[in-house]
Amino acid sequence: MASNAELTPGSATRGDRRGASMTALLDATAEILSEATRIEASLSEISKRSKVNSAMVKYYFGDKEGLFLALLDREAETAMKSLSELVSMDISATRKLRIHIQGIINSYYRSPYLNRLIHYVVESGRPEASERVSKVFIQPMMDAYRVIVAQGVAEGTLIDVDPGLLYYSLVGAADHIFFASYSVPTTLGAPSVDAKIKQQYTDLICTTFLKGLSPD
Amino acid sequence: MASNAELTPGSATRGDRRGASMTALLDATAEILSEATRIEASLSEISKRSKVNSAMVKYYFGDKEGLFLALLDREAETAMKSLSELVSMDISATRKLRIHIQGIINSYYRSPYLNRLIHYVVESGRPEASERVSKVFIQPMMDAYRVIVAQGVAEGTLIDVDPGLLYYSLVGAADHIFFASYSVPTTLGAPSVDAKIKQQYTDLICTTFLKGLSPD
Repeated sequence: MASNAELTPGSATRGDRRGASMTALLDATAEILSEATRIEASLSEISKRSKVNSAMVKYYFGDKEGLFLALLDREAETAMKSLSELVSMDISATRKLRIHIQGIINSYYRSPYLNRLIHYVVESGRPEASERVSKVFIQPMMDAYRVIVAQGVAEGTLIDVDPGLLYYSLVGAADHIFFASYSVPTTLGAPSVDAKIKQQYTDLICTTFLKGLSPD
Repeated sequence: MASNAELTPGSATRGDRRGASMTALLDATAEILSEATRIEASLSEISKRSKVNSAMVKYYFGDKEGLFLALLDREAETAMKSLSELVSMDISATRKLRIHIQGIINSYYRSPYLNRLIHYVVESGRPEASERVSKVFIQPMMDAYRVIVAQGVAEGTLIDVDPGLLYYSLVGAADHIFFASYSVPTTLGAPSVDAKIKQQYTDLICTTFLKGLSPD
């Protein structure tokens, strides 16, 4: 009957419903992880928040790890689409780098669980998780960095930095204030990273990297 | 009998033995964590490696989390002693910053588990863990950064950067290549971070921050 249903006009609606449930589950997981300082989201909490039966996690994603991987895929898709559009824009390399820095800090601000989740799935030991993270996040970023650095070298505004080393230094710097957010009261005397601190941090990272990597 | 023994001349030897067992347990834990990509060290593994009965973990440290905290204390003690000596040296602020950057990258190279372990104990939810990390790592680093930045501003070699924001950007940049070491084959085409890559990375971070934070 299920296969018949897929062939009827009703299948579009079924597909929509399926899509809506998957989105609700992913949204709920993202929400729960954003509120927590650790990667901890129980199936019952995800189910309650998304108003989708927890059995659907198994049906759509295999298990909770599969749900986490799907959430990473979704984050990556949005972020890498923007990055690839940025790279092909007709603007200077330093302007691209500045927009990119603003973009990743905004991503971590919106989804502070992002790097924690990446580490969680990589360290959960699934052989495919590490490859997937490489494929959806790291490889596209390396490609973009390679193009931006080459453009900057040609324009005389950037030194010929190794894109891999640039990746670690920039992503590490951009992420750490969110990753180690438990320490913000001690370091900055503020309860948490707010929009103003985020802006100050973005300015500092832009200054440090754009000036630090300039050839003059 | 135990309390009598503590009053006899033999108690020094007992104290030495206690110290040796504690050191063996800490060394074994550090070794196991250095080899792993995650914070995972079983009591039986620690016991086997240290040749100290696993019951001693309970006796000396309360539990495994206590052992982890003691390992962090030991790491912090060494690192913060060096940092405080560096700060009081009669050299320029930029020279201090350069030596400090080399120092933290060397620490992460030797003990790649360091930041993972900090996060592990902070996220394990013990109320005292977060405070302890602040007290032994973050507060002393903030104090040092405050002094170095003020000196650099006075010497005309550094901009007046917020020490807390400098802390996040610098520590995040220095750490990320070790923290995300699973991706090194993808980014750098090398099996792992070796001495040569570590040196290249150190040079890049020094260049980026010293030049990036200079007022000219």
